[in-house]
Amino acid sequence: MTEFKTVTAAILVIGDEILSGRTKDKNIGYIAEYLGGVGIDAREVRVVPDVEAEIVAAVDALRARYTYVFSTGGIGPTHDDITADAMAKAFGVGIDHDPRAVAILKARYADGELTEARLRMARIPDGADLIENPVSGAPGFKIGNVIVMAGVPHIMQRMLDSIVPTLETGARMIAETVSPGYGIGEGMIAQPLAAIAAEHADVSIGSYPSFGPQGFQTQLVIRGKDPAAVAAAKTAVELMVRAVVAQKQG
Amino acid sequence: MTEFKTVTAAILVIGDEILSGRTKDKNIGYIAEYLGGVGIDAREVRVVPDVEAEIVAAVDALRARYTYVFSTGGIGPTHDDITADAMAKAFGVGIDHDPRAVAILKARYADGELTEARLRMARIPDGADLIENPVSGAPGFKIGNVIVMAGVPHIMQRMLDSIVPTLETGARMIAETVSPGYGIGEGMIAQPLAAIAAEHADVSIGSYPSFGPQGFQTQLVIRGKDPAAVAAAKTAVELMVRAVVAQKQG
Repeated sequence: MTEFKTVTAAILVIGDEILSGRTKDKNIGYIAEYLGGVGIDAREVRVVPDVEAEIVAAVDALRARYTYVFSTGGIGPTHDDITADAMAKAFGVGIDHDPRAVAILKARYADGELTEARLRMARIPDGADLIENPVSGAPGFKIGNVIVMAGVPHIMQRMLDSIVPTLETGARMIAETVSPGYGIGEGMIAQPLAAIAAEHADVSIGSYPSFGPQGFQTQLVIRGKDPAAVAAAKTAVELMVRAVVAQKQG
Repeated sequence: MTEFKTVTAAILVIGDEILSGRTKDKNIGYIAEYLGGVGIDAREVRVVPDVEAEIVAAVDALRARYTYVFSTGGIGPTHDDITADAMAKAFGVGIDHDPRAVAILKARYADGELTEARLRMARIPDGADLIENPVSGAPGFKIGNVIVMAGVPHIMQRMLDSIVPTLETGARMIAETVSPGYGIGEGMIAQPLAAIAAEHADVSIGSYPSFGPQGFQTQLVIRGKDPAAVAAAKTAVELMVRAVVAQKQG
């Protein structure tokens, strides 16, 4: 069996506003899909509050386990923005105004406008690389295998564009979808689908029901890194669905 | 200082489809906001794949730490629905077809339609209480302090309606928002805001920038359980914002 290179990631969302439900997260799905597209597999997500000990514990657990950790949130100028300090603590390094980041902010703001608060956004843990922020200037950073980004989706997305091309990537996960259509419930296909899944252990097969205007339908998704294995499993699923539909109509 | 009762929760989203980005989660924000409304504080969220060991590890970590754990996903009839078995494993109990759940499914499906696969949805860990599913029949369940719900938002929401009234609740978190308006950036208010946050340690104050058609704006949110403390901090924030706006215009 061919070996396919695997690069993994966790997503760490930092922010009380997500946990209170006040802000509905738009970053998790975007990052997961983006990473999948370049061959980095998101394997876990955590959302933690703006509490240093919680951030440090999550960063330490995730960075030890996955190739990369992508964090969002908590790098602005206000007192509740504590991500940079938490990252320095997790890595056991110092943190101070970074001359490269200060230069970026100086170029962005007029003399009187670069307040002490805004300068806080230039505090970067020692040894980190900056991540460009073409939207509002204040950079993200990468320390070790942890990529630290803004929480505002518009800015976070540009930071991803900037950092991802520099990262290691693996074989892309290929996903093929088979839609049996309305009227074919999960309960009608579950047994033959399980048999196919057992026979095609080199792919994963998921069944995703959803509720639409015409009632329930389900989508069958075959995922794997080996194009031939995915294609073979897809054919098996299509033949099975055709047989179930014929039996129902017959 | 008055003590306010605190009841906490974690949200555990189970499903490869969320981690691949194929399905964009709609449950986290809904559950977080719903729980906040009744006095249960969401403190952490995790998203894990359809892998038994991962589900068990997350359930064990979260149920030890929070009053309740709310899980979504993985309780359907297909082979990739392994949540019920994982919960039984986490709690070290058996799992089998539950007569109460079987009765619900028998009432729902015609004789030939209650396939072995559909009967899988009646497999409930020993000692669990059922959670009603008025949408499609197959119940969720509560085992210990873990509430196990469907992943389809429409069904999950009805399960929440059914189970939450039976749970312990605490004092509601009160949130008040002050909007300085466009043109008042975080950098202009960060210092006085930090001073207010330090003086009002009995509330938490967050600053949430967003990017809209007119550029950046920020919203200041004061959160706490003591109505008097929240009101006092809100007044302080409003006076501060007024002073910053006046200085800018002057």
